[in-house]
Parts: sequence; C-alpha cells; structure tokens
Amino acid sequence: MTEFIPRATRFVDLPDGFPMRAGGTLHGARIAYESFGRPSPAGDNVILILTGLSTDAHAASHPHDPGPGWWEAMLGPGRPIDTDRWHVICVNSLGSCKGSTGPASIDPRTGEPYRLDFPELSIEDIADAAAHTVRALGFERLACVIGVSMGGMGALSLLTRHPGLARSHVNISAGVHSLPFSIAVRSLQRQAIRFDPQWNQGRYDTEHYPCRGMLTARKLGMMTYRSAREWDSRFGRARLSPERSCDEGPFGLEFQVEGYLDFHAQRFLHRFDPNSYLYLSRSMDRFDLGESCGTTAEEALARLHLEKALVIGVESDILFPLSQQRELAEALGAGGPGVEFLALESPQGHDAFLVDVARFGPPVAKFLSVGW
Amino acid sequence: MTEFIPRATRFVDLPDGFPMRAGGTLHGARIAYESFGRPSPAGDNVILILTGLSTDAHAASHPHDPGPGWWEAMLGPGRPIDTDRWHVICVNSLGSCKGSTGPASIDPRTGEPYRLDFPELSIEDIADAAAHTVRALGFERLACVIGVSMGGMGALSLLTRHPGLARSHVNISAGVHSLPFSIAVRSLQRQAIRFDPQWNQGRYDTEHYPCRGMLTARKLGMMTYRSAREWDSRFGRARLSPERSCDEGPFGLEFQVEGYLDFHAQRFLHRFDPNSYLYLSRSMDRFDLGESCGTTAEEALARLHLEKALVIGVESDILFPLSQQRELAEALGAGGPGVEFLALESPQGHDAFLVDVARFGPPVAKFLSVGW
Repeated sequence: MTEFIPRATRFVDLPDGFPMRAGGTLHGARIAYESFGRPSPAGDNVILILTGLSTDAHAASHPHDPGPGWWEAMLGPGRPIDTDRWHVICVNSLGSCKGSTGPASIDPRTGEPYRLDFPELSIEDIADAAAHTVRALGFERLACVIGVSMGGMGALSLLTRHPGLARSHVNISAGVHSLPFSIAVRSLQRQAIRFDPQWNQGRYDTEHYPCRGMLTARKLGMMTYRSAREWDSRFGRARLSPERSCDEGPFGLEFQVEGYLDFHAQRFLHRFDPNSYLYLSRSMDRFDLGESCGTTAEEALARLHLEKALVIGVESDILFPLSQQRELAEALGAGGPGVEFLALESPQGHDAFLVDVARFGPPVAKFLSVGW
Repeated sequence: MTEFIPRATRFVDLPDGFPMRAGGTLHGARIAYESFGRPSPAGDNVILILTGLSTDAHAASHPHDPGPGWWEAMLGPGRPIDTDRWHVICVNSLGSCKGSTGPASIDPRTGEPYRLDFPELSIEDIADAAAHTVRALGFERLACVIGVSMGGMGALSLLTRHPGLARSHVNISAGVHSLPFSIAVRSLQRQAIRFDPQWNQGRYDTEHYPCRGMLTARKLGMMTYRSAREWDSRFGRARLSPERSCDEGPFGLEFQVEGYLDFHAQRFLHRFDPNSYLYLSRSMDRFDLGESCGTTAEEALARLHLEKALVIGVESDILFPLSQQRELAEALGAGGPGVEFLALESPQGHDAFLVDVARFGPPVAKFLSVGW
C-alpha cells in the first residue's frame, strides 16, 4: 500500500492502546503534522489547524518542503495567519493516509495493512489524537484552534472534550453535525467506491486500485465543493477541443465542465487511499456534537466560554449551508461575548476558503491580530 | 430486451426514413402516446404534454389503465388540466424505452436491438416526432403545448420548428439550454452507467443489467430533483432501523435519507433501459435553443408570437435554476403580451411539479380556463 506523506511531515506517537470512541484501540499509532513559525518562549503563540477530509498536514511551503501547501496564501510570514507571530501546527487527521495512522497503515498485530479491520473512526478520535499531538509537542494551551470543513467538526469536538486547551476558535464552513443532503452526497461517494469491483471489500492494491469508484466519488465531491453560479461564468456551455473530447468512446467528455471535473478527479487517483476515504467520510456523517456531549449542541457550545471566536460561512456552500454556521455562532455567543459571524458572498461554495483569499484573508488576519 | 410500456399506450408510426437532426434516419419507428378527454368537433381543444426524461405517456389514470399516472393530481375531470374540457395527448419521447422507438427497440436492418447503433438523438428529434404524432392524430393546431423539465426544452423546440402549431404554451422547470452544473450531474450519471462492467458497451441483457451504474445514476438524479431544505425537515438525522441498515455490509445504509434514496433507486432498476437513459441524458446537455435556431434564444422566442404563455419555476430547483425560467419568460414576453412568469416557493426543488399540486394546480388551471 502506497503512503502519501509530504516531505517535511513529522510525527508524534499516540499512546499505546489509544482508545477509539466506538470501540477498539490502536497500537503503535502516530499522527503526522507540520509546523510553521517559532514558538514563543512562553509557548503562548500556538495555533492548531484541523483540516478537511482529503488534506494533508502540508498547509504551506516550508524550509524543508518549498512546495506550495493547501492553504499557502493564508499561512506564512506576513500572511493572514502570520508565522512571524504565530507558531502554527497543522495536523493530518487520524484515519487519513497522509502520514497519520489509518486503514492503509500496517496493523502491528498482523504485519498487514488494517484495511477494513481498522476500528471505527469518529471525529472525536481525530480530535483526541490532535489534542495529544499538541501536548506531546509541549504545549498545554493553544491561542487558537482553526478548523475548516471536517476540521471544523474536529475543532468543536476538541474544544468540548478538552476544555481549556484553546483560548479562541476560528470555525470555517462547518457545522455541529451533518445534514441529510451532505450525508446523501457522501453515501453516494462511498457507494461508488464500494461498487467498483476493484475495491474488492477493501483488498485492492496499487495495481488493482478502484479508479472508477474514486473518480466518481471525487467528481461528485467537486460538484458539491463548488457552486453552480461559479460554473456558469467559468464554463458556460463551452466545449472541449475535439482531441480532448473523443478519447473516451461513446458518451465521453464533451463540455469544458466535464473536462475540468475529469482532470481534477484523475489527479486525485492514487493519491488517496480509498478505505481511508470511506472511514473519514462516514465519521463526518455520524458526527453530532450534541449527541457526543450527551446534551444539545447549543448547551455544549454555551459551556465553552472561549475568549473569542470567529465563525465563517459562505452563501453558495451547499455541503455545509450558511444556516449551520449561523446557528453555530449563535450557540457560541450564548457562552460569552466576542463571537463574530461572517457570511461571505464567495461564489466558490464550500471550497471558497481554499481559493477566495481576498474574502477570507482579512477577517482571519484581523481576528488573529486584534484583542489578545 | 424488456420494454416498459404502460397498458393503455397507443402508437403512431413515424414516416419511414424519419430524419434525425444529427444524421441518420429511422425506419419503422413509432411514437407511444396516451390521450385523455375527447376532442371537440372543431378539434380546437387539444393540449399536448411533453414529459421529463424518465417518464412514460401514462400521465393519468385512464379507462383502459386505472393505475395512477405520473401527473395524476394535475390531469383528469375537474383537475387543473381538465379533461372535461380539454383533449390531452401525452407523448412518450422518441429515444425513450416506454413504447416509443429508442436504443432498446429492434433495428429493422439487423433484427437486433439498436443499442449504441441508434443514431444520435436531439431534443429537436423528440419535438419533430411529437409534432408528427399530433398531426397524424388529425390535429393541425394545438390550444396549448405543456412541457415539463426535458419536455420544456422539447416544447420550445417544437414551437420554434413548427410555428403556428400551438396557440399557447406552459413551460415548467426548464430552460433554453443546460447550464454546466446540470451538465456535470448528467455527465456523472452517464459515467456511473458506463463504468458498470455489466453495461458492457451497451450490450447488456436482462440477466446482465448494469444495476450498480443505474442505482448510482438514479440516486444522483434524486439528489438534484429534490432540495436540501426538504430533506432537512423530512429526514433530519434520523437513522434506519437496524434490520434495514445492516443488509449491505460495511459502509452500508445507516440514515433514513440513505434508505429513501436506495428504495426509490432500486424501484427504478429494470424499469428503464440504460442506453436509452444515456441518449436522452446527452440530448439535454446538447440542447441549445439559440444554436438550434441559428440565432439567439431571445430572438427565436421573440419571434414566436404566442397568444399567451405561462412560465413556472421553483426557487429550490438546482437543476434548472429559477434564473432560467425568468430569462425564458422575458424573452417570450418580447414577442407579445400575455406572458406570465411565476416563481413558486415549493421546497421540493425540480420535482415540485410532480408533487406540489397545491402550488402548481391553481396557476395552470387559471391559465387554461381564462382568456380563450
């Protein structure tokens, strides 16, 4: 099984017998992370970033890995998350295949990859593993935890399960649970992978990789990460050039929007472990902050008493619609002042935080520079 | 190859050598239709209905087929489309598998089903075949042509290609062309079918039918036919009962929204010919009223000079968004007065015309009862 670890990624071991919320324990597990900027002598300038489902810890370029990261424009010296001031740790989620232990990792009991023998994964496990990572690196208190998309769920879980670990919070394009439309999207993505004969109940290898299932899953994902409005102006009804369109046989690619989806989905192939995708995807469906805290999400959030928080949503997001961020901000606000809610008009939908730096940069920069 | 023809369906032969717009001709082809109500002696009370992609001609119950039709609540004695007054003809689209000639029909040249040897299908061909059907039944002038979804595209094509054939028009949840998001949806549906090894380049049979591809295609369709808002209130995060959820192995169904999609997609299996689905689906992507008329859609529509028209769209429709119906109504209005545009607040998205009779019934009834 190939692993997909960026060059500058480092590792923290999880305690042996790391308990998983839904049962089972992990032995010899580790969490991959990268860090940016320097910790202050008092260790009071630490920011933790929790990522989306398919992202690695390489959030930005690095002296040891100059390749651009997934949040390059947001993170670095003089950038909105300013590494001249902050020491930033970005963690690869437990269960992922980008360096942290997941279904593609070797199960020390058998010497073989876990595959579907990996224990059930919860967002809470991802949060606990991230909290352990921060503490193992010597930090008892974070200035801020920033969570984007799935990482926003993880951040809420971390805040409620590890009270006092973070002073503040930035939550971007997430929610306290998954709504049925996004559950349906992910269910269909998982089905496409499971329906691919090459998936073979999780026993694929590099030569027999479920390409078709992963292509369908990724394209469906992209359709929900962006917005119809963006595509109207970006692609309209423009056709692909004939060479591009006829290499697929009958009913192949014809319009530019089809070529765009195919190009990006093909790039994703062989860069992500399908079983890992299934585990992470289902953990998002199942996450329910209220259920997790044995109360309602509102009550759990009102108890947090953060020094401040910023909740950002995007009007064109169909995966985590704006109503979810509004409700989250209201509930956080019930726990104290200093909670700001921002509805951005980006046309790029759920993915806006990755690309619309013009809209996302200033409020994040302001949140991190004022009022400490 | 199984055919899927409702009981009361009748047939009109197309002229031998029926020319297809993109090339090729059909021999021995026919169009399936059902009719409701009686023609007046002057033949001036005829309404033609053109349907969505997967629908048959059985729009409503019938003396010869008492089973409910797909538009049962809208069509019949005393209903919004009142068959005490109107003689209604509902046509199954050319290229479909519900009685009209399509890829599953026998190619008289070979004695075998056409499959992928069926000539390329255009919305214009569907319109021409419907116009021929009306004339073959003895009617030279329609009081109204009603088109829903794909049928709305067909109706616009019929109106521009057969000027004078209809006095008025009701267009529901359609547009003058397909936008990139809906092209992407259909492209992914087609890919899911083509990726199913059982599709076998169109050479499946009843025993080897591409179930997995059709399931994925149908579920994806349903996700775009309804709306996230409807699902929030209808399903929320409710779980399936354990018996229901565990019959699929790992990563199987768990939430009610997943069970709902699966139930309806399973019902669709074996009731629709996959090749027919591919042909009809692509004809929607390719339709472009302006291109078809050698001008712009606006100019083509302004030239129609209908006596009156009603354009209805739904705010929660993500497949044919409301902006498309607004533009259509504006362009039709440039050709004369009597064009009404109605934006309905149904939460049921693109499918609202099938289920939200409370909102759709009254304006359609009013349009058909006043001002003739």
